[in-house]
Amino acid sequence: MIKKIALLLLFSLFLTTPAFAETEPAVSQSTVDMLWVMLAAFLVFFMHAGFAMVESGFTRSKNSLNIIMKNFLTISIGPMLFYLIGYGIMFGETSGTLFGSDSFLLSGVEDIGFFVFQAMFVATCATIISGAVAERMKLGMYVLIVIAMTGVIYPVVGHWIWADGWLAELGFSDFAGSTVVHLTGAAGALTVVLFLGPRLGKYTGKKVNVIPGHNIPMGALGVFILWLGWFGFNGGSTLEADPELIPMVIATTLMSSAAGLISTALYSQLRFKQIDASLALNGVLAGLVGITAGTAEVSIVGSIVIGLISGVLLVEGITFFDTKLKIDDPVGATTVHGLCGVWGTLAVGLFSLDTGLLYGFGANQLLVQAIGVLAVILWTMITVGGVTFVLTRFSSIRVSEEEEEIGLDLSEHGSRAYEFKDTLGGRESIDSKGELGLADRLNNLNESKATS
Amino acid sequence: MIKKIALLLLFSLFLTTPAFAETEPAVSQSTVDMLWVMLAAFLVFFMHAGFAMVESGFTRSKNSLNIIMKNFLTISIGPMLFYLIGYGIMFGETSGTLFGSDSFLLSGVEDIGFFVFQAMFVATCATIISGAVAERMKLGMYVLIVIAMTGVIYPVVGHWIWADGWLAELGFSDFAGSTVVHLTGAAGALTVVLFLGPRLGKYTGKKVNVIPGHNIPMGALGVFILWLGWFGFNGGSTLEADPELIPMVIATTLMSSAAGLISTALYSQLRFKQIDASLALNGVLAGLVGITAGTAEVSIVGSIVIGLISGVLLVEGITFFDTKLKIDDPVGATTVHGLCGVWGTLAVGLFSLDTGLLYGFGANQLLVQAIGVLAVILWTMITVGGVTFVLTRFSSIRVSEEEEEIGLDLSEHGSRAYEFKDTLGGRESIDSKGELGLADRLNNLNESKATS
Amino acid sequence: MIKKIALLLLFSLFLTTPAFAETEPAVSQSTVDMLWVMLAAFLVFFMHAGFAMVESGFTRSKNSLNIIMKNFLTISIGPMLFYLIGYGIMFGETSGTLFGSDSFLLSGVEDIGFFVFQAMFVATCATIISGAVAERMKLGMYVLIVIAMTGVIYPVVGHWIWADGWLAELGFSDFAGSTVVHLTGAAGALTVVLFLGPRLGKYTGKKVNVIPGHNIPMGALGVFILWLGWFGFNGGSTLEADPELIPMVIATTLMSSAAGLISTALYSQLRFKQIDASLALNGVLAGLVGITAGTAEVSIVGSIVIGLISGVLLVEGITFFDTKLKIDDPVGATTVHGLCGVWGTLAVGLFSLDTGLLYGFGANQLLVQAIGVLAVILWTMITVGGVTFVLTRFSSIRVSEEEEEIGLDLSEHGSRAYEFKDTLGGRESIDSKGELGLADRLNNLNESKATS
Repeated sequence: MIKKIALLLLFSLFLTTPAFAETEPAVSQSTVDMLWVMLAAFLVFFMHAGFAMVESGFTRSKNSLNIIMKNFLTISIGPMLFYLIGYGIMFGETSGTLFGSDSFLLSGVEDIGFFVFQAMFVATCATIISGAVAERMKLGMYVLIVIAMTGVIYPVVGHWIWADGWLAELGFSDFAGSTVVHLTGAAGALTVVLFLGPRLGKYTGKKVNVIPGHNIPMGALGVFILWLGWFGFNGGSTLEADPELIPMVIATTLMSSAAGLISTALYSQLRFKQIDASLALNGVLAGLVGITAGTAEVSIVGSIVIGLISGVLLVEGITFFDTKLKIDDPVGATTVHGLCGVWGTLAVGLFSLDTGLLYGFGANQLLVQAIGVLAVILWTMITVGGVTFVLTRFSSIRVSEEEEEIGLDLSEHGSRAYEFKDTLGGRESIDSKGELGLADRLNNLNESKATS
Repeated sequence: MIKKIALLLLFSLFLTTPAFAETEPAVSQSTVDMLWVMLAAFLVFFMHAGFAMVESGFTRSKNSLNIIMKNFLTISIGPMLFYLIGYGIMFGETSGTLFGSDSFLLSGVEDIGFFVFQAMFVATCATIISGAVAERMKLGMYVLIVIAMTGVIYPVVGHWIWADGWLAELGFSDFAGSTVVHLTGAAGALTVVLFLGPRLGKYTGKKVNVIPGHNIPMGALGVFILWLGWFGFNGGSTLEADPELIPMVIATTLMSSAAGLISTALYSQLRFKQIDASLALNGVLAGLVGITAGTAEVSIVGSIVIGLISGVLLVEGITFFDTKLKIDDPVGATTVHGLCGVWGTLAVGLFSLDTGLLYGFGANQLLVQAIGVLAVILWTMITVGGVTFVLTRFSSIRVSEEEEEIGLDLSEHGSRAYEFKDTLGGRESIDSKGELGLADRLNNLNESKATS
Repeated sequence: MIKKIALLLLFSLFLTTPAFAETEPAVSQSTVDMLWVMLAAFLVFFMHAGFAMVESGFTRSKNSLNIIMKNFLTISIGPMLFYLIGYGIMFGETSGTLFGSDSFLLSGVEDIGFFVFQAMFVATCATIISGAVAERMKLGMYVLIVIAMTGVIYPVVGHWIWADGWLAELGFSDFAGSTVVHLTGAAGALTVVLFLGPRLGKYTGKKVNVIPGHNIPMGALGVFILWLGWFGFNGGSTLEADPELIPMVIATTLMSSAAGLISTALYSQLRFKQIDASLALNGVLAGLVGITAGTAEVSIVGSIVIGLISGVLLVEGITFFDTKLKIDDPVGATTVHGLCGVWGTLAVGLFSLDTGLLYGFGANQLLVQAIGVLAVILWTMITVGGVTFVLTRFSSIRVSEEEEEIGLDLSEHGSRAYEFKDTLGGRESIDSKGELGLADRLNNLNESKATS
């Protein structure tokens, strides 16, 4: 009998596990988990290109360099601050479920892949602000806000919800960050915008003026890049190569975003008698923010409904903030990331297959979600408001009127984003030695400074 | 003896399988298959950004928003329809090898990752039409065609070839979709274009006019994105993480596309005495479509020959359709996806290492490939033609002449894709309060409607 | 006792390895290695889109098509030449540690995935030249340089350092190619630029003129794409799915590039009293090139220091080459890839945790690194110089003054990159039938040639 068992084992070893027969080692789960998290981190990283293209494309060409620099600085400063203190505050040993208090400079941290993935997230949260403050905020002041956000404010929210914090203990559920990332970013954005005020010329008397973006195709590419990146954002939040969970996360993410676009397009057709392209593009983002909290625990039908509602909320939210509250948020970040972030977080309490009201689990989860939303809004607005208030004591956080008129590209960076004179209509393509424009003169000025 | 075997087993367990020693579970093949298919699905998704950039860049700036909206709607409506009925028709239990008849709304479907991957494909097929009908087709009518394509027409072709259909039974071979995706899309595109007719000003008397694209660098970026996505398109069609097959698929895909570009560039130099940039960029796509059917069963040399021939076919095909047949297809979709799709499908019958004529396996495979090509062209043109005919009974599928002159961005969406006045030559960069352009006035009009 | 062991084995088999219980085969390490290398190869491929956008965006609009064609030709010709002879010279059986001498046309090569990954690298090295020679070099001449680089010059360097070459034997360490790829490309670029001379109008008398790029947002997108691709470039150079090493490589790559941007921005603020956007964007690339050699063997703190120094070197290097040496390198390739490549290579000798001077291991590694740098610069400049010299005997490698004034898009390709007249300020958006520009007339001319 023993002989049989042993032979059976021998047999099974050589027949069912070809890897052994080839004397190749089998692969550990941690290896494929790492591969998945790295792929997801790359995709989340690429979202910053998406933010840069969206924010630049949907605003005026005279501020393009400035916005892009804000995005680049955010994805650079964010990981740096997170390495120095943010990671410790977020994932360190908890101090009374309020914040972490060790692991600074990654001391004692073994899972570097997890740090990389989270470092991409922290920058995503902070960069949401750059779009809302576009075309009027001083670059240096924005950088100081980013330092506060990525070093402390966001990590505290993350500790509450994704580590051993009090909201996690309450059962608050936010799988990939409708609240942690998007609502935190949007609440910070709204706060700074309230200090900044609207762009010159946005509200004249009772009139609400549209300030059209300068390059919508580039903005559309940005939306596509964000959409792509979101598969890593939501998918990577599994943190492991789970063969059942990941495809469901990707499917609900895809279906909610598709529903967001369709819903915005239809609703815009009904309301304005035409499909507004900029709104429809934002509809995708609305559906994405909406599904981010519940992506791992709703059905495909649930994800479609969440996306459809997100799309309508988007149109109403942007109109409400822009024309009723007269809050000038050039790319609609408050609505896309804030309002839809709240909706997505609450939607877990409705649509979760495990705890949702609509599946007969009562209103408890919904209540917890609401508590979390309120807590995060309060915390973020108070801290960002405090930091911004302190900054305004030292200097204006806004460029001068003259600089705003000229554009931040010339006034803050001394150069312009575009120079098409060589290809315009063929009329100027031969002789490029003609009269110098303002930018050329400024450029030459800078150059002579640089070389002197 | 038994003792020795047992000890040997014990020994082998601890020495050859470090994963066990660390008491970590080994990874199943289905986990890494899922990872690979997800990566591939993300890349195929990103192809839609590529299509949007190519189609927008190679047409006029006054129609950019409209084309981009068509692309966004396709990648949103496609997965939705595929979820509702398409997946069932394609992969459900076969009805007489003609179409599937269960699995609607994914009922009973377990492999959600496979659904996600296939949903990206269905949208790819449909979006091929958007380029061919650019600059003149009504958005609403295009959407109805997309619904027919993604809900029924493409899934039937897919059932024939990639499920238990009659062409699969015949031995028809189309690994990643030269016929299923590209030829189906192109045949549909050609059919709609025949109903639409050419753009205003394209053919004046006997003269064939060039209508140049407005942003070729953006189009070139689109080609790069499509190229990148194609590695997922072809590579993911393995559907499993096969360590031998995948690298061969990627290598043949790379070499054929490289050969396509080189061939188009050289041929264009010979024929036109200069390298036409737009043609050369399309040469990459020609080589990619050409290798898609045979990517898993040809040699690297075979893939280079397929690409070289694709590049020449591209130049001749575009010239033939554009100037001889006077079929106005703004981005050459009929040639790139149709003609090269046919060529790629037939090339399997020539170059397959398993069944190809050139490797001594006779003409049988070639014959089967030809039957499949004809059947798919007939099916697609008849069904798309029928749907389009019915649509024309209700309303024109084409915008009015006046709207076409103004551009579909203003006439269908009320806004424009670009606004560069802040950065043009410095001349208008200071005073942005000057006279309003048409778009500003339209925008203000829309805004006042929206807020009233 | 034997019985117990056998039962224990049986027990352990069924409890610790669920994969077996499900009778699913376990996955081999080579499968996940292949997945990782494929992902990395896709990312490195995508870097070519980044190069195209950076080089086109940072130069004038009249030369955009030409630069983009150079990039497309490089990623097509590179893999082709590498397949034919380059791979053999790089990885074939060594001839006296100087070059490889078999494996041509991949004969006898089994790891096709490794070939694909390396083929993407070879094109990356060659395309560095395209930026430096922008706006004045004949396309055909550039192609001949690319053939020499990808077929022979780069593969020899690769053999020395990454195969059984003399520098590898010496202990030269260049993990992902600060020297192999970037310094080789930059040394080649500098050599060709010395033959070419500066662009017309760059240096007038004692004056150094700035020739601003035409589309910095597109260039910024290119930088983001390069940054993304670099995670594959450095990460993939592990060549295996190592769960410890890969996250460290990604972390040091991220931190060094972030430090490069921050350092360039701060230094530019100090030196020029404002943050120069173009410089700051290049600061990211400087940090990336700087970390490429040492990415797998420095600490995170080390990577930050390397990036900070790279950023300062960038500003000083570009100023020095541009205004002191008066070498006109439109995108700063010599500094970004050359100077920072040298720095990154030497930095291994300082910061390596295994061999670095700063960690008490003496100056030996630093010396070996310096020898390698000198050898590669000499080899590349002599061979590229020789090839270029021979080419100049047959014909000028530079376009005529008239062609340069008109722009290479019209003079070499007969068309233009942009056509915005439909959307400019609304003034020309209605009537597109007005006077034809130069490009339209040229296009019509070409078309009538093409159709005759």
